[in-house]
Formats: sequence, structure tokens, C-alpha cells
Amino acid sequence: MEKTLAQLAEHISGKVKGDPNIKVNSVATLENATATDISFLSNPKYTNALQTTKAGAVIIGKDTGAPVPLLICEDPYYAFSQIVVLLHGYRQHKNIGVSPKSNIAKTAKIGNGCIISDFATICDGAEIGDNVVIYSGAFVGDNVKIGDNCILYPNAVIHDGCRLGNNVIINANATIGKDGYGYATHKGKHYKIPQVGVVVIEDDVEIGSNCCIQRGAIEDTIIGEGCKFGDLINIGHGTKIGAHCLLVGQVGIAGSTTIGHHCVIAAQVGIVGHIKIGNLVKIAAQAGVINDVPDGQNIAGTPAINALNAKRAYSIIEDLPEIKKVIRRIKKQNGKSDTEKNGHE
Amino acid sequence: MEKTLAQLAEHISGKVKGDPNIKVNSVATLENATATDISFLSNPKYTNALQTTKAGAVIIGKDTGAPVPLLICEDPYYAFSQIVVLLHGYRQHKNIGVSPKSNIAKTAKIGNGCIISDFATICDGAEIGDNVVIYSGAFVGDNVKIGDNCILYPNAVIHDGCRLGNNVIINANATIGKDGYGYATHKGKHYKIPQVGVVVIEDDVEIGSNCCIQRGAIEDTIIGEGCKFGDLINIGHGTKIGAHCLLVGQVGIAGSTTIGHHCVIAAQVGIVGHIKIGNLVKIAAQAGVINDVPDGQNIAGTPAINALNAKRAYSIIEDLPEIKKVIRRIKKQNGKSDTEKNGHE
Amino acid sequence: MEKTLAQLAEHISGKVKGDPNIKVNSVATLENATATDISFLSNPKYTNALQTTKAGAVIIGKDTGAPVPLLICEDPYYAFSQIVVLLHGYRQHKNIGVSPKSNIAKTAKIGNGCIISDFATICDGAEIGDNVVIYSGAFVGDNVKIGDNCILYPNAVIHDGCRLGNNVIINANATIGKDGYGYATHKGKHYKIPQVGVVVIEDDVEIGSNCCIQRGAIEDTIIGEGCKFGDLINIGHGTKIGAHCLLVGQVGIAGSTTIGHHCVIAAQVGIVGHIKIGNLVKIAAQAGVINDVPDGQNIAGTPAINALNAKRAYSIIEDLPEIKKVIRRIKKQNGKSDTEKNGHE
Repeated sequence: MEKTLAQLAEHISGKVKGDPNIKVNSVATLENATATDISFLSNPKYTNALQTTKAGAVIIGKDTGAPVPLLICEDPYYAFSQIVVLLHGYRQHKNIGVSPKSNIAKTAKIGNGCIISDFATICDGAEIGDNVVIYSGAFVGDNVKIGDNCILYPNAVIHDGCRLGNNVIINANATIGKDGYGYATHKGKHYKIPQVGVVVIEDDVEIGSNCCIQRGAIEDTIIGEGCKFGDLINIGHGTKIGAHCLLVGQVGIAGSTTIGHHCVIAAQVGIVGHIKIGNLVKIAAQAGVINDVPDGQNIAGTPAINALNAKRAYSIIEDLPEIKKVIRRIKKQNGKSDTEKNGHE
Repeated sequence: MEKTLAQLAEHISGKVKGDPNIKVNSVATLENATATDISFLSNPKYTNALQTTKAGAVIIGKDTGAPVPLLICEDPYYAFSQIVVLLHGYRQHKNIGVSPKSNIAKTAKIGNGCIISDFATICDGAEIGDNVVIYSGAFVGDNVKIGDNCILYPNAVIHDGCRLGNNVIINANATIGKDGYGYATHKGKHYKIPQVGVVVIEDDVEIGSNCCIQRGAIEDTIIGEGCKFGDLINIGHGTKIGAHCLLVGQVGIAGSTTIGHHCVIAAQVGIVGHIKIGNLVKIAAQAGVINDVPDGQNIAGTPAINALNAKRAYSIIEDLPEIKKVIRRIKKQNGKSDTEKNGHE
Repeated sequence: MEKTLAQLAEHISGKVKGDPNIKVNSVATLENATATDISFLSNPKYTNALQTTKAGAVIIGKDTGAPVPLLICEDPYYAFSQIVVLLHGYRQHKNIGVSPKSNIAKTAKIGNGCIISDFATICDGAEIGDNVVIYSGAFVGDNVKIGDNCILYPNAVIHDGCRLGNNVIINANATIGKDGYGYATHKGKHYKIPQVGVVVIEDDVEIGSNCCIQRGAIEDTIIGEGCKFGDLINIGHGTKIGAHCLLVGQVGIAGSTTIGHHCVIAAQVGIVGHIKIGNLVKIAAQAGVINDVPDGQNIAGTPAINALNAKRAYSIIEDLPEIKKVIRRIKKQNGKSDTEKNGHE
């Protein structure tokens, strides 16, 4: 789709600096853009690229006098996202309706406008809302409830009884609602405990590929409205995550932990079970969190501490050999002086 | 299912304190239980909740004088697990027999009472025991042997030649027996080495969702009897894990490592290849294990050391900036005193 | 397949020490080999096993005078790999042609000699080269291009538009080209940004099971020729990995990072986005890389530093309690001496 800068400016409530009739049809990076591309600058690290970019225009927060047409707006990254939607759109799903080669239980209810591919399975008592897209190999267990406008990508698995809100995306090969990791150990053997809870995923959540979210042992595992998950994430049974959290790839959260709203949990973080993380908490990549965290904290490290302190402290690990050398010398001197003292006694 | 406390007490060989005719039909947490729920206390952290719980009864190790009917028994968590089985049962699998829409090779042998869903694949020479449940999209490769009472959840993949004992559960999207990570590097290129071994999974093992267990390069990869795996775990080729180990989510163990029995390996632990971990070893979350570990050790940290020492030591990382400051001051003083000494010489 | 040592020597351009007519038909470890097995020694750690092995012959770099027939050659591990291929071969795929129970779009193009199993899906506009094997449950999205001799194992998912070169192996349950983790946050909500790029996988790459490689936000994600991936790896959107890199299991690399050629990235490493890793870089297991890395560096730790320094430094963490004790004593003495000084003033 081709648009003039004037049209784009109107779309994002921004203003044009330069020729409003310039036409673009695609997005690109500052570095690789050509005259029919629009680019953006939100990370100051790339400001220099403004001088040399060949983009048709650049979305930006304020006029920096760069030699390129600008689309000036308050929140350039958000504006950029709106323009990507406008120019490129989201993935289209071929409207094949409900394939006769899918396996849909007679007692399942399917809403209007759904697309259900070959080799998808919908089990007894499942209820699927309107305009849901279910790709091939996806599995929807007994009595699962799925809201409107959801997408289940190929081979995603939703186990029995789990509930998804509206506009939920479950990416390929993700597993929702497998049994929680619950065993009672008795005389050296581990006995499986039926997991009575389910997984509840609220509206507007996206779950990455190959994630695994366990159903609750007793109470439900809950993923709050608007949360966005990266890939290969593991959520333990009964854990409750508040609204609008960002969890990046390979995060692991053990069971029965509670996480507030608008938290940002970076890649490969591990969080133990049975703790409480507040709202608006930011956790740096690879951190290990073992204690409750109050609202608004930024933490890092294992065990996790204040992020700024962690940054300073972990950078000093490199100096430990030198520190140890000095400590050893001191101990030797003290040892000598102790001996001298002892000798004097 | 509804049961009286007297019936439950008999079932778990415990005794009732309070009205033995109270009826419960479900389990719940102390906090959220209602009069028809039974709860339990095994973690002393939650003892206070006994005073306020509205549960119909609580399973407990000893009478603490709490104002709630009690079911007193030796091992309350194990008793609780037995009661969850009694009241709620394990997941039921719809008895559809062998679906004509599955793909079963003519040379495969299927035992009695098996459930094989649409879109499941059983390849040549595979042998499946009795009462095995194979969900849709699951793949059983050539010559795989599966014992009795196993469950393969949707899209689980068992590659050719692998062997599963009885009562094995493979959760959704798990991969058993893909080729080990084996390449010979020659003049800058990596040449794939055929992986001659398979994966052997002994009786009563549960493998979590989205796990990946590699087949052996030369010798088999072995998961010992009664092991319970969390999700997203990676086991390298030729690694052998003893009986009744617990591996929590996102653990990674490289190839040719040997692990004893009854080990507990917490989440996100990494263990290098070609080492030997003893029996009854406990490894704390996120630890990195690079050396052999004797029987009975509790370890933590990267590289892993004694867990108590690690706990103490890692909590001091936070103090490194202060330690460095003091060291710097000392070096400066010593420098001065060295200079003074030099001046005197 | 049975071969004489003479035949094997010719095959690998090595020479026999001992009886060239000895026949072997299988490979085994030094420890467990029998008279019809050939074994190898490349790790000096196992040199002692040469004295006691019952192998029919051993592939080795130079004659050590061991009491066993030897196959002497320059690169024993590579020679071993050639012999495994000769004696055992790679996995055979049953030639079923294109199954009528697969789901192949009319506009898809399938090359000669392909094997496409039941329940595999090939979408509109996809182009598959010659001799490609696609296992059951695998999904090939719209307009995907796949070269010759590729293998897609069961339930592997290749999203729309992605491109695979020749001889590419995608293991079971891996996901290629799901949307990048891209959201614009505006007034507390996260808005999904269409991901315009795809994933390009060059020739001779193997991707492990349950890996997830994100498609690019704007520019493509690229996995260079000859790279070999372990399992459960996560690659962020727009990241570019050079040729012949080895990535071991559970590695995570965030978006827009560039990695050179011939790097070795060990298990559970995390690498942040928007950085540049040079060529021939080695990164130790569990490291956290947050800055650019020049060519040829060996790094380890979090944040990653020179690997030798890291090895030394991290081993001293254990001494931190003792170091802190000494520092505390010094501060106390200094405090006293400061007081004394102050007293003197």
C-alpha cells in the first residue's frame, strides 16, 4: 500500500516537515531505507544515521534539522507501529472456513467466521468464539473456552478446561495447561498429584512459541490482560501474572508466585515459587529472584538486588583475583604482626 | 465425589480430630477453602492461615489446637495427594479406541485397550503395550517400544528406536530421541555424525512439555525409573540419569554425564558434559556445574560450590564496590609506604 | 555393514597398525567396545582406556604403543565420524512419496523425490526443492521456499515467507519465523507491530528440536551457512548469525544482534540485542553478553569478560565471606586509627 506523508501524518496525528506529497510504501531501517521507505528514530544511539539515510521520510520525536523529510510526533515508536500496520498489515489467514479434515467433537461449539484447518482437533465441550483462527495440528482439549478473534498457530496445545479471553494469540508449539509439576514424595518415590486448576489467559495476551504454562495444582494459573510473552517461557502451577507485563524469552517462573501489573521480566530470568513481585517491577536478564520485590523496583543479579547496585557490583567480579592478592598480603602481614605480638608476649 | 472425614481418614491411615461426619468434595488452599473443601498444611510458613481458614477440614502432621477439624497423619503432603486422587482423580481420556484417522503402519503392534487419536502416527515396527493413550499429532517412530499404561500428549514426538517403560507420560510438544548434538569439525566445517544410540526411558517417568532429550551418539541416553521432569528441559546425548531424580523446568545437561539416583536439580541449572554427579545430590536453581559431585552434596552457584557457602558468598557480591574501595585505599597507602621505603633505601 | 581395517584405512586415508584383515561392523566407546567394534581416542582424558579396551581397533592420532590394533590418522574424531557414516549411515526415511493424507495447497510446488507424510501441511505458494523429507505434522506456511535435500522432522513449523537453503535440517517441534517480539507501548498497553521480515536459513544448517527463531521486524533474521544449533534455542528478530557457528542448547540471543562466523556459543548463554559479536568468538556456558565482542575473543561470566580472567575470578566468589571479614577488620582498625588521629588533633 502506498501513502503520502500527508496521509501518514494524519493517520498518526503528527506533522510533516518537508514535501507532504512524497509517497512511501514500506518501512525500513535508517541504514537500509530507500526513497520509497519510511524509517524511524526512537533510540538516540542511531541519531547519526539521520544524516546519511536515504529514506523517503523519518518518523521522529522532534525536528533535529536532519536533511531528510520528517514526520514529527509525540511517540515515534508507537507512530511507527501504526504505520507498519497501515502499510504492511498483520498476517492474513486464508479463509478456508472449517476444514472437513479437522477433528471437531460434536459437542464442541464453534462461533461465526472461524477458520479451522486440517488436522486441528477440538474436543468435547469446547467453546470457540467468533473469528477464531486455528491452524493445523493445534489441539483444543475438552471444555476449553476460547474468546473471539483468537489465533492458535500450528501445533499449539490447549489442555482441557483452560480458558482464553478475546484477541489471544498462542504461537506455534506452545503448550497451555499441561499438568503442574506436582508430586508427593513418599519413601523415595514421587507420586503424581492431580492438578485441579486450569490456566486462565485474559484478553489481548500473546504467548510465544514453545512456551509452556502449567495448569494450577489447586488454584488456577492466571496470565493477566495484555501480557506479552516471548518464546520458550515456563510458568509454574498456580502462578498469577498481572496485567500488561512483558516477559522476554526463556523466562522461568516457579509455581504459586504472584506478579503485579506492568512488570518487565527480561530474558532467561528465573523466579522462585511462592513469592510476591509488586507492580511495575523491572528484572534484568538472567537475574535470579528469590525474595518478594516491592512495587517499582529495578533488580538484577543472582540473587537479585537493586539493578544499579548490581551493575556496579558484578563489574567488580573481574577484580576478585587482585582483591584476593591484596587480602592475602594483608593477612600475611597481620599474621607476621600477630606472631611478633605473640613473640613480644 | 463426596467423602466424610472418617472415610478420608481411613483412606490415608490418619485420624480425625473433630466431627468425622463432615463431608467434603474438593481440595482448596487454606486461604480460599470453603466448608466443602479439605485443605492441608505442610509448609510451616502457612501455619497462621490455620486460624482463619474456612476449610471443612485440614490435613496436618500434628494437632496444633487450630479451630478447624483436622485429619492428622504422618506425611500430610502425601496424604493430601492421595485425597486429591480420591476426590478429583487423574485426567480422563475419552475412550475412542484406535481412530481410523490415525496413521498406523501395518507392521506396528498395538496392545489391548489403547486409545490412538486422529492425526497420530505410529511407524513401522513400533510396539505399543496395553492401555496406552496417544493423543493427536503425536509421532511414534520406527521400531519404538512403548510399555503399558503410557500417555503421549498431543504432538509429542518419539524418534525411531527409542524405548519407553510402563506408566511413562510424555507431555505435549516434547521431543524424545532427536539426534544428539554431534559434529566433527574439519577444515572449518561441521560434519554431522550419525547418532547410533537411542533414548531409554524407564518405568514411571514423566517428561514435561517441550522437553528435548537427545538420542545417544554411541551409547544410549537413559532416564532412570521414577524420574520426574519439568518443562523445556534439554538432555544431551549419552547422558544417564539415575532413578527417582527430580529435574525442574529449563534444566540443561550436556552429553555423556552420569547422574545418580534421587537427585534434585532445580530450575535453569546447567551441567556440563562428561562429568559424574553422585546420588542424592541437590543442585540449586541456575547453578552451573562443571565438576564431578560426590554423593549427598548440596550445591549452588556458578561454578557450583557447597550450597551454604554459596548462599553466604553470593550475598556478598552486593558489597563488592565497598570492598574495592577499601582495597584501593590500602593499595594507595601501601604504595605510599612502599615509596617511603624506597625513599629510605 | 562389515568392513576390514584395511578398507576403513583407505576410506579415511589413514594407516593400519596391526592386522588389516580384522573386521568390524559397529562403533563403540573404548570402555564398552567388543571385538567387532571400532572405537576412537581424541580426548586425552581417556588415554588410559586404551590399555584395557576390548575394541577390534581404535582410531587414533598417533601410535601410543597400545595393545590394540590402531587406525592412525590426522584428525581421529573426523575420521571416526566418517566411519560412523560408513558403518551405520544416517537415518533412513521410508520412501512413501507424497501422502494423499497430507494437505498440499494447489499453488505449492513440490520437487522430485520428495517424501511428504500424512498430516503435513504445505500452504499456498510454497516451493519445495528435490528430495526433501517432510514428516507428519510439519507445517510449511505460505510462500515458504525450501531448497533441496532438506528434512523437516515431525511438527516442525516454518512460517510464511521464510527461506531455507539446501541440506537444511529442522528438528521436531522447532518453530521458524514466528513473529518477532515487537510491541509499541503506549499509555500502558503494548501494541503488536507487524513483523515484516522473515527468517533466512542458509545451506547446511541444522536447527535443534523445540528451537524458536523469530522472523525479522523490518529486516530478515539470518542463520548463516553451516551453523549447527542445539535444542531449545531462541533467536530474536533481525539477528544475523554468520557461517559455521555452533550454538549449544538453550542459548538465547535477543534481536538485531550480529554474530560473526565460526563462533562457538555454549549452552544457556544469553546475548542482548543490538550488539556485534566478531568472528571466531567463543562464549562459555551460561555467560551473559551485553557488549560488542571483538574477533577471536574467548569470554565467560555475566557480564561476560575474558574467559581466563573469568575462570580465575568466579572461583574466588567462594572466598568472599573471608574477604569481607578481613575488610571489616581493616575498616574497624582504620576507624580506630582515624579516631586516634582525630584524638591527636
